[in-house]
Amino acid sequence: MSTLRINVILFGIGNVGSTLINQVIESQKFFLEKRNIDLRFPIITNSTLAFFEKEGVKNQWEANFAQSAIPFRIEDIIDYVQEQNLENLIAVDATASSEIIKSYIPLIQNGFNIVAANKKANTLHLDFYNELRRNLKNFDKTFLYETNVGAGLPVVQTIKDLHFSGEKITKIRGVFSGSLSYIFNRFSSEQTPFSKILIDAEKNGYTEPDSREDLSGNDVARKLLILAREIEQKFEFSDIKIATLLLLELNEKHSKAQYAINKTLFDKPFNIAKITQAENHVLRYVGELDVITQKLEVKLVSVPKSTALGQLKGADNLIEIYTKSYGEIPIVVQGAGAGKEVTARGVLTDILKITDKIKIKETVFQ
Amino acid sequence: MSTLRINVILFGIGNVGSTLINQVIESQKFFLEKRNIDLRFPIITNSTLAFFEKEGVKNQWEANFAQSAIPFRIEDIIDYVQEQNLENLIAVDATASSEIIKSYIPLIQNGFNIVAANKKANTLHLDFYNELRRNLKNFDKTFLYETNVGAGLPVVQTIKDLHFSGEKITKIRGVFSGSLSYIFNRFSSEQTPFSKILIDAEKNGYTEPDSREDLSGNDVARKLLILAREIEQKFEFSDIKIATLLLLELNEKHSKAQYAINKTLFDKPFNIAKITQAENHVLRYVGELDVITQKLEVKLVSVPKSTALGQLKGADNLIEIYTKSYGEIPIVVQGAGAGKEVTARGVLTDILKITDKIKIKETVFQ
Repeated sequence: MSTLRINVILFGIGNVGSTLINQVIESQKFFLEKRNIDLRFPIITNSTLAFFEKEGVKNQWEANFAQSAIPFRIEDIIDYVQEQNLENLIAVDATASSEIIKSYIPLIQNGFNIVAANKKANTLHLDFYNELRRNLKNFDKTFLYETNVGAGLPVVQTIKDLHFSGEKITKIRGVFSGSLSYIFNRFSSEQTPFSKILIDAEKNGYTEPDSREDLSGNDVARKLLILAREIEQKFEFSDIKIATLLLLELNEKHSKAQYAINKTLFDKPFNIAKITQAENHVLRYVGELDVITQKLEVKLVSVPKSTALGQLKGADNLIEIYTKSYGEIPIVVQGAGAGKEVTARGVLTDILKITDKIKIKETVFQ
Repeated sequence: MSTLRINVILFGIGNVGSTLINQVIESQKFFLEKRNIDLRFPIITNSTLAFFEKEGVKNQWEANFAQSAIPFRIEDIIDYVQEQNLENLIAVDATASSEIIKSYIPLIQNGFNIVAANKKANTLHLDFYNELRRNLKNFDKTFLYETNVGAGLPVVQTIKDLHFSGEKITKIRGVFSGSLSYIFNRFSSEQTPFSKILIDAEKNGYTEPDSREDLSGNDVARKLLILAREIEQKFEFSDIKIATLLLLELNEKHSKAQYAINKTLFDKPFNIAKITQAENHVLRYVGELDVITQKLEVKLVSVPKSTALGQLKGADNLIEIYTKSYGEIPIVVQGAGAGKEVTARGVLTDILKITDKIKIKETVFQ
């Protein structure tokens, strides 16, 4: 069987993107031998610059990028792959940009499949969500985004498989945020003030640069919305009832500097929440979709320490999927839900799934 | 897009097989509307009889089978699908038979894909295992068996995805048996004698008809072997170190009647194992593959109650996957690992995955 060359156009060479390139370079021989595929990165970009290398980047890609990357527009990318006759195209969005998702549809129309770590495209208005899927169908292209929820954990695919096999999913609930998992796991088991743990989380890189993005609950809400739509529940972001963890005095209307010096304001309310719980209970910040009552909620809950949710450790995610056949005992998927290594590996798995589809088509033509 | 007709030849109409037919009949409209596929069962069989119905069985299939099923050999099945020009063939093995797996290779050579709930084909000698895969490759067919481990839980696919994305799996450990999970979860939290819980498990249908098959550890060993081979570890069944739970006086050399009246012999040794544990520890029967040391073991262990394994409830399975990127904190998949509803749904998911592959090929031809 001849080797199949796959051209990955990578948008974003931050933590996830650069780890992805290095993982692929490291495993190139393995992919060639085990799967007969040759994964290449002929174009890599950051937010403003693109580096073009027809044969794909090599070990020294960072130096090459620094020397030779040039300003680009999406049209330049499309023109280049057409001029060079590059086939089997996968655009990987390893950014968090709101801009780049506007290019998804033009990319699909020009022969690209898409893999996104970026959650934005799946949480905008349903009109865009559906328009994107119409284009994928019309142009026979694939869009995968397993890492949108729980990084490399098998969550999106599991939910999709259950739903499309006719299983009735009744509820999805879980801790979807590594940063908030870390904060509440420590807060529940230690005597340390909330503000101190929050600052530790920031220092250890578990939070966004502005930790209010995590505390707002919006990130958890986005992940929940993505899963809800996966099982054809037609919710918008505005339908989600979000109990934010931010106080009025600390919310986004205040400067980051003001936020930084006033974090001890969190200590009193969270301490009250902690000590007023039932015995052997712990606090967890969860997202919950109840399909029966059609409610999407993001909230702080108090759960028995002896439950799976109560036993959570480190910065782990935990997602419970309740279905008709499984009854009261959910399917639980648990593990590191963030981190550049596991996220890049999840993106790579999506790339390989699309590669398999391309390979099936190639086989037919032979 | 035109509707794709998929012909499922079902071997075995016991618990899983009959549930599968009913699930498909129930969801037929959903599959037609959502996926444009028409799943049919033109042939269904039990161990000796086959029922042929070109248009596929309907709601009254049990009555039809009782009336019109006839003795069959595999050649009859192959002749029939050829005479009737049935395409897009999937043979589903919902039996536990050692005989039927001999037909896998002839079926593949005659155009069948295979989905198996039956674990046998993956636990025989590696020569057969590899020969089967060579045929799949040569005839461009697919063999899926997600339900071999953990029924509908996403275990096999997750391990496969991790391995083929280049991730290094270092250890797989877990409770792979619903019956032994039930027995040890109750034994650890109650004061009830082991023999009494074992008899309850038998009565509730959690064990095999002869519960010594569960207690022998062979079933756990088989599941572990399947996962080990999935990540290209070339073990044979005989390489597994199995610490059986059976006593010499109760093993398979004695009659089932003798076994039945002597179960209280279990009580003393298990009680000793229980009371000699460290405080806040519980007993669990686990399978463990250590890739680094190349050890495959099935054994009774004592673990802290506060761990995920220690928190296990009901008849749940729990599988931990340790990898290089995830480090010390494993990916954990947990949930009901047995039961006709969830197993049949897992088989159906495998059928739909093969259907997707067939669909991609069809699209190319259009």
